[in-house]
Amino acid sequence: MRNPTKVSIEGLNCPVPLTHRERIVTGHGSGGKMMQELIAKTFTSQWQNPMLNAGNDGSVISARGYARLVVSTDAHVVSPLFFPGGDIGALAVCGTVNDVAVMGAKPLYLTASFILEEGLEISTLERVVESMRAKAEEAGVQIVAGDTKVVEKGLADGLYISTTGIGLLADRCHINGWEAKPGDAVLISGTLGDHGIAVLSARGALGLETELASDVAPLNEMIADMMAVSKNIHVMRDPTRGGLATSLNEIAKQSKVGIVLEEGSIPIKPAVESASELLGFDPLYIANEGKLVAIVAEDEAEEVLQVMRSHKYGKEAARIGRVATEPQGRVLMKTLIGSHRMVDMLMGEMLPRIC
Amino acid sequence: MRNPTKVSIEGLNCPVPLTHRERIVTGHGSGGKMMQELIAKTFTSQWQNPMLNAGNDGSVISARGYARLVVSTDAHVVSPLFFPGGDIGALAVCGTVNDVAVMGAKPLYLTASFILEEGLEISTLERVVESMRAKAEEAGVQIVAGDTKVVEKGLADGLYISTTGIGLLADRCHINGWEAKPGDAVLISGTLGDHGIAVLSARGALGLETELASDVAPLNEMIADMMAVSKNIHVMRDPTRGGLATSLNEIAKQSKVGIVLEEGSIPIKPAVESASELLGFDPLYIANEGKLVAIVAEDEAEEVLQVMRSHKYGKEAARIGRVATEPQGRVLMKTLIGSHRMVDMLMGEMLPRIC
Repeated sequence: MRNPTKVSIEGLNCPVPLTHRERIVTGHGSGGKMMQELIAKTFTSQWQNPMLNAGNDGSVISARGYARLVVSTDAHVVSPLFFPGGDIGALAVCGTVNDVAVMGAKPLYLTASFILEEGLEISTLERVVESMRAKAEEAGVQIVAGDTKVVEKGLADGLYISTTGIGLLADRCHINGWEAKPGDAVLISGTLGDHGIAVLSARGALGLETELASDVAPLNEMIADMMAVSKNIHVMRDPTRGGLATSLNEIAKQSKVGIVLEEGSIPIKPAVESASELLGFDPLYIANEGKLVAIVAEDEAEEVLQVMRSHKYGKEAARIGRVATEPQGRVLMKTLIGSHRMVDMLMGEMLPRIC
Repeated sequence: MRNPTKVSIEGLNCPVPLTHRERIVTGHGSGGKMMQELIAKTFTSQWQNPMLNAGNDGSVISARGYARLVVSTDAHVVSPLFFPGGDIGALAVCGTVNDVAVMGAKPLYLTASFILEEGLEISTLERVVESMRAKAEEAGVQIVAGDTKVVEKGLADGLYISTTGIGLLADRCHINGWEAKPGDAVLISGTLGDHGIAVLSARGALGLETELASDVAPLNEMIADMMAVSKNIHVMRDPTRGGLATSLNEIAKQSKVGIVLEEGSIPIKPAVESASELLGFDPLYIANEGKLVAIVAEDEAEEVLQVMRSHKYGKEAARIGRVATEPQGRVLMKTLIGSHRMVDMLMGEMLPRIC
């Protein structure tokens, strides 16, 4: 339910067979339009509240005048459990840490609930738990509550992990999906698509082998450094399922602005580029697990970019576009050959079980 | 990971085949000793922190001198999804609300993450979501963040739900598993085993049909009323997986006391009694989802009991025993015929996928 109701579903311009509206299909887990339709229709219509309706990566909560907290939750079902550069445990920690951090909060606590398949080797579980420990330690968060359930053989794919993150939000912080303003710069912290292609290559199913590693990483330290130099970071988001294209479409709709990208400025590794061409994918839609898109006031963008580049997870950070008044609610790309094309939100499912 | 490390595993007196230590078996999801062994060995050894180590239903967290919050998480994998008196959605809300409330906190917020099986009827999901809304409304909590993932057909049993609850803890509150004191009264809010037998009957697999409904309910209002009349409620717990026997063993170990039960005073519905006899179960080990065990200073126990009885979820509340110095870390039952027997923690799995 990342980015729930504020993303309108009127843009649903791809015909969806009737059965897709009656039964769950893989596209409902895509991070794109079908998921958002499901969420708007089935969940937020029932659970109406200003926090869910805000449509951000996490919700700001506060208890009777106490601290403002950010809370975010994610289920993790990646297949395979281990892949170059990471595993389901690393994803479960970093994904939720990042969702809290992009709201501008300092992640403090995580909870973790496990659904284990009967027959899972305990040594496998131990590797995952150790990986979670390492990433939690790096991110400076504590895992404070957990749960384990076991289901029969065949009823889970090894294990699934749901994590919930809680972070503390400074009073002055108003980073939000609806804060993008015409004139702002659009920054990305590094290359796109590494995670998705690394997981695909680990599946081996596509005859695809690369040296590519997932980018899975906790971004909260880099984000804190960025926020220390600029009070005018308007929006941050980690472009996971649905990729950069989907995140930017969400922001364009939330902020009622247009976002114009420069194709030539978007960093993509040659290995991702060639794998994508081979497979017919567009790297703009491929999931990242250690990347940040930031929309920053133009006069502070350069300084923020330098901070990103000084950080180990932002070495290849780049300015990739700007916020405009038009096309409102849409994302436009100036291509390398000088033409323009619309970059729509992901529809259906491109890469199931990528996170 | 309810009640993690403080429960020692030295009492593991039932031989466990070696493979059970190498692979996940259903017993690892039991709520009993095998689960606790797994948690101690695999999770808390890695994730060491005072909050996890405390061994309660939830963790007390606080952010730099701000409010004390309680956070708790649970995965829900019940089969079937719908059963007399409730469904997986009701469980997912009430289970987590209750885990927060038994720590003495006022539950405020929930997050929910869904793992959906491809092919699940959306109308089924809608029923579950509506049930969650109704229970959240009754409990006075808001669902503030969520996530949905989809896995292939066969890789989940319809749907699984993980919920995390966040509640506010009053400064004066020190309800904890280690606070039971010799002389305290042991109170239970009503009949035992209703949930487990209701789910079994819904499975139909055992040729068992009863009119029995699950007791699934949010207990936070009753708990708040109890806390309003007594500052000396020392321990509260909701005896879910593993049943009353397991909850009391946990408390006896945490508090280093003995707990002595009076068999004749334990409320059990005739339908549960007879189904249990038929199936060879002991209702003390059967899961409840709307029951509370409270350990209260003797001189305030009667008043607390009256408050419980005045509440719709505590009409059949009863005093069922007392805390003693011996047998330390164990639970003893005075049987109807006047003899004594040890009531051990649940070992292995009695009823898989009950919650």
